[in-house]
Amino acid sequence: VNVEVLNTGTELLLGSVTNTHLAYFGQQLFPLGLRIDRQTTIPDGASIRGALLDAFPRCDILLVTGGLGPTTDDITREITAELLGFRLVVDETIAAVIRERLKRRNILLRERMLRQAMVPEGATVLPNAHGTAPGLYIPPVLTPALSTPHLFLLPGPPRELKPMFESYVQPLLRRIRGELPNQECRTYHIVGLGESAVEELIGMELSLRGDIEVGYCARPNEVDLRLIAPRAVLEEVEPRVLEAMGRHLVSTDGDLIEEVVVSRLTELQKTLALAESCTGGLLANRITNVPGASLVLLEGFVTYSNDAKIRSVDVPEDLVITHGAVSEPVARAMAEGAAAKTGADFGIGITGIAGPSGGTPEKPVGTVFIAVTQRGGQTECRKEIFPTDRETFKQLATQVALDMLRLRIFEDEEAAPRHAMARTS
Amino acid sequence: VNVEVLNTGTELLLGSVTNTHLAYFGQQLFPLGLRIDRQTTIPDGASIRGALLDAFPRCDILLVTGGLGPTTDDITREITAELLGFRLVVDETIAAVIRERLKRRNILLRERMLRQAMVPEGATVLPNAHGTAPGLYIPPVLTPALSTPHLFLLPGPPRELKPMFESYVQPLLRRIRGELPNQECRTYHIVGLGESAVEELIGMELSLRGDIEVGYCARPNEVDLRLIAPRAVLEEVEPRVLEAMGRHLVSTDGDLIEEVVVSRLTELQKTLALAESCTGGLLANRITNVPGASLVLLEGFVTYSNDAKIRSVDVPEDLVITHGAVSEPVARAMAEGAAAKTGADFGIGITGIAGPSGGTPEKPVGTVFIAVTQRGGQTECRKEIFPTDRETFKQLATQVALDMLRLRIFEDEEAAPRHAMARTS
Repeated sequence: VNVEVLNTGTELLLGSVTNTHLAYFGQQLFPLGLRIDRQTTIPDGASIRGALLDAFPRCDILLVTGGLGPTTDDITREITAELLGFRLVVDETIAAVIRERLKRRNILLRERMLRQAMVPEGATVLPNAHGTAPGLYIPPVLTPALSTPHLFLLPGPPRELKPMFESYVQPLLRRIRGELPNQECRTYHIVGLGESAVEELIGMELSLRGDIEVGYCARPNEVDLRLIAPRAVLEEVEPRVLEAMGRHLVSTDGDLIEEVVVSRLTELQKTLALAESCTGGLLANRITNVPGASLVLLEGFVTYSNDAKIRSVDVPEDLVITHGAVSEPVARAMAEGAAAKTGADFGIGITGIAGPSGGTPEKPVGTVFIAVTQRGGQTECRKEIFPTDRETFKQLATQVALDMLRLRIFEDEEAAPRHAMARTS
Repeated sequence: VNVEVLNTGTELLLGSVTNTHLAYFGQQLFPLGLRIDRQTTIPDGASIRGALLDAFPRCDILLVTGGLGPTTDDITREITAELLGFRLVVDETIAAVIRERLKRRNILLRERMLRQAMVPEGATVLPNAHGTAPGLYIPPVLTPALSTPHLFLLPGPPRELKPMFESYVQPLLRRIRGELPNQECRTYHIVGLGESAVEELIGMELSLRGDIEVGYCARPNEVDLRLIAPRAVLEEVEPRVLEAMGRHLVSTDGDLIEEVVVSRLTELQKTLALAESCTGGLLANRITNVPGASLVLLEGFVTYSNDAKIRSVDVPEDLVITHGAVSEPVARAMAEGAAAKTGADFGIGITGIAGPSGGTPEKPVGTVFIAVTQRGGQTECRKEIFPTDRETFKQLATQVALDMLRLRIFEDEEAAPRHAMARTS
């Protein structure tokens, strides 16, 4: 089954907006046994015609996003109907829903909004719970002049697209696809090893077998090793992968390091407090993106100023004066202060120079000290230099912090029952 | 000039990674007077051959990313050389750089890493300051059998691609492009109006002129109105746009709302403190993504637990007991407490229920109270309900907070000089 994605939107090509649809579709299709073979982005307007005609003969399923809205540059619905030779008719149910929705939100009904209620004859309407434009499913058309795939026209805004996809598109795709094929995908999320090292340690050996598709994806400080094969083959090789990756392996199910950390702390019934300077709340933000983080994170301090470090997490003023705010003693004091102040079991302190300005010869832009402490236990501190842009710097520094905490809480397995007992006694 | 982008990477199609290249290229090309006409994503491996052959006749400039690394699924360099009929030869300079780089980082040299030093004859090497694989520029080839565009082969990892693009690709493109065309793009960043309302208020009128390309891009709680036309035309219509959008207009140069807020506070020499509960540090993170935020943000408190709200930003315990942690009085107390505790001029407090769990009939998931205060002045509080996923909820809530602060600090123009005087006296 050949699947293609066609994203329309001048804003995607101009870079006003990042295209997140492809990653979303990829993740949603894989468990259905479907894989995207090609994705194309084109501008709003007339080029949809050529792109549809190009894609029709290449694929069995085509997911189109965008161009269903009320404005004049939204013409996906009209061009599709024209190419397929279908008449557009007003769907009174949709029109009523649009009227009702606008009324409820006190928005004046504009005539052009009702264009969104036009439906090609023969299409199935996919209701939009979060916007006015419904999606459309058009089954294959086979005429002497044209043969079309299963065609899905979906709205561009992700908050409208995602619920629609999960409620209506997924069941249709499952029906189109029929039985699941005998293939699975497993992704090993690895931190602290480069792509070449991973291939050297395990990947070459797997590639040579011939029955496994091996792929890599490198990001700052992490690599995903992706294996696609029948389940039995994956189960056969997994022990070897686990052994080769050792403590660098963060998860085998695609879980992010922050998810692994939050779930482990929840399991151990331990709590966490943060004192961030240069990462400015990104660590707290990553942790609180995980549902249930409130059981684990007691508090985060974004102690951007020196005063804040001294006042909120009790960093001794003379440490700041003697060593500077960006120093190992201050990072340690931040971690320990955050834990002590909040009563959390673990504390993290991060202080550094995100740049672009603020560097010195001894402490260049990109310098960061990251400390992890366990209350009543040891404090560990790492110095790193990440001479990169501000946002990547923040990502890398929080990544190292999460990895230090991860190694700490997974090495600490025996402490867990003792701690749990101490709590209940 | 026709420009296309070809991204290779199975991880992009599987959704392991979001494709950020397109947005980056779009933003980089526009000021050069270039626009991307089409972007395609294909898997690693053999499909690069067909995709290159498809794209060659369609475009004048082709930017290819990915597949230049050391692993077995990286074959962009080899397939390109084969299609163009070029021999691959070892570039000893690159080989030396790779050896040196690995030695410095204490990484064992693996034979396959030297594949990255292979260069098609006639290609220009684009040095990679942040990785081992260099980029390549291959000028157009015109043979009876084949005619190719200006071809750029670039690395996949953004931290390698971006510096290479800015140092080497941009100057080459500028030379290829020649003179800038007589077109400019202006983007009006609008908060608090929907796409249809923007079109109603101004867009239709602009579209009807015929000499302006009008585009919209709607995101949660914001719309970009994008106009493309000769500069004189843009300058003629701008006053009308400014008038129609009024206080909903955040910026005319694509600046994000957090950038506008930080720059305005810097100008006013005023400071800010935050107390976030349900947004978990995202507001601090957005603000500290702006270089220079340290002049403005004194401290952020991620007061996730009730204890933290009481201890760190002095929320009276009886308010939490009487009204609940998610309530207008607590949001107000958080904003006021954050400002008082840190001595900041402005304080923001956010408390709500991000979900997926934790809702009640009176306060469903998505409920959020957002308060903005000025020390010694009034505190304003808004209640919103955003029944969406956790991350969109956090985005929407921080967006409203930034907009409330923005309106406050732009209305407050006369206060600035007084404040500055008070400081120096």
